[in-house]
Amino acid sequence: MISISILGSGNVAKHLWDAFLAQKEVTVNQVIGRNPNTLAHFAGKTNTSQNFESFMDADVYIIAVSDDAIPEVSPYLKNKGGLVVHTSGSVSLDVLADNPRAGIFYPLQTFTKTQHADFKEVPICLETKTEADGQLLHTLASLISDRVYFVDFEQRKKLHLAAVFANNFSNHMFHIAHEICEKNNLSFDILKPLILETSKKIERLSPYESQTGPARRKDTGTLQKHINLIKEENQKEIYRLLSRSIQQTYGKKL
Amino acid sequence: MISISILGSGNVAKHLWDAFLAQKEVTVNQVIGRNPNTLAHFAGKTNTSQNFESFMDADVYIIAVSDDAIPEVSPYLKNKGGLVVHTSGSVSLDVLADNPRAGIFYPLQTFTKTQHADFKEVPICLETKTEADGQLLHTLASLISDRVYFVDFEQRKKLHLAAVFANNFSNHMFHIAHEICEKNNLSFDILKPLILETSKKIERLSPYESQTGPARRKDTGTLQKHINLIKEENQKEIYRLLSRSIQQTYGKKL
Repeated sequence: MISISILGSGNVAKHLWDAFLAQKEVTVNQVIGRNPNTLAHFAGKTNTSQNFESFMDADVYIIAVSDDAIPEVSPYLKNKGGLVVHTSGSVSLDVLADNPRAGIFYPLQTFTKTQHADFKEVPICLETKTEADGQLLHTLASLISDRVYFVDFEQRKKLHLAAVFANNFSNHMFHIAHEICEKNNLSFDILKPLILETSKKIERLSPYESQTGPARRKDTGTLQKHINLIKEENQKEIYRLLSRSIQQTYGKKL
Repeated sequence: MISISILGSGNVAKHLWDAFLAQKEVTVNQVIGRNPNTLAHFAGKTNTSQNFESFMDADVYIIAVSDDAIPEVSPYLKNKGGLVVHTSGSVSLDVLADNPRAGIFYPLQTFTKTQHADFKEVPICLETKTEADGQLLHTLASLISDRVYFVDFEQRKKLHLAAVFANNFSNHMFHIAHEICEKNNLSFDILKPLILETSKKIERLSPYESQTGPARRKDTGTLQKHINLIKEENQKEIYRLLSRSIQQTYGKKL
């Protein structure tokens, strides 16, 4: 049996709590957070508190707060015996230097408040200072996910950067497509199967192999027609830069 | 019963043929194409020919060739009685001006050679010159797809442009993420659940609501760290431009 406490009451805290509550091998002792509104979600099944001085003992303390708040809350755990981990993709283990046992427990997924996440499919990236703590975190992570990785800080920073392209920027492309539809009285529903298929393809083909479209074909006629169609200067700039980047990608390697 | 002939033997031709073969209400009379290798796929169940002069009669002729080749093949159908349609997202109906009955049958999806497409989910965008031909195409399209739309040329051009953002450009983002993983000995598998979830989210939320990440949060510290991490000038430029575009999107409307 592993006992845990969660610091924070936002999206990541909520999804971790949901996943751990379903595990017999884990006890969630406590959730501590500043915001009484989000904290209310955890009440009933777990001890909750707004007081960071009132920590109950636990084997693992999971800090699931915004990056900036990690150095503010971690000192409260300095004299606790357990393993202290944070959940950020871009913050070093050094931020927990005051804690004798420290680690990273970084779930790489985009969480939505209202949607239950299938944690079994969420990759969890771990880092610890000792092998024993590595084993403890691996045991804990494997209870809720089938995709557990050890990733050091240099790699984790790159992974976080790659996730910005894979998630944030691709979603922004969907947003621009949505805007083009809206301005032309087209239902965005027409594009949804295309978007789903675009991402499903990565299971079978590398994105390099999947690429299609006028830039990939170096179809300069269509590229020019599209540039002329776009009214918004910002969208024009994005169209030009990404088309050039695709042409270079295939120009180089063909 | 509707009889059809298909001109072309590429990806779109193949997927349409597969979908129509499964329908009792449709007979595929013939597939005509120049390339004997790809044409071989259709042999056996349908008459095939490389000779564009040898058309059998059909109710609907579907031209599924590259945009540039449409004006080359459509004259062969000038004196045929049937409805002549092409499958391009960016070519006008005018290219078929010689044909007294003409239309558009544009399936909006990214097709892969090796993968069977579930055509029921593929949006098909139609345009015709007469209402009677519109009814015929609608009947035909509805046999293979649950998502049939009438879309005029101005809208279709915009839809094709939106599809470039939704598919081509988002896939290029996946490619850059893949490159970052490869260069840092990270398995791209770690990012696949994130990519799948990013696109699944559009079923529940608009891309505007789904957006997360440092640019959305205006977290300039992380944005600068990422810029410093990126070695490739082209990727740096894309990171800067898209982050600025996201910041403007939320700056404007917040």
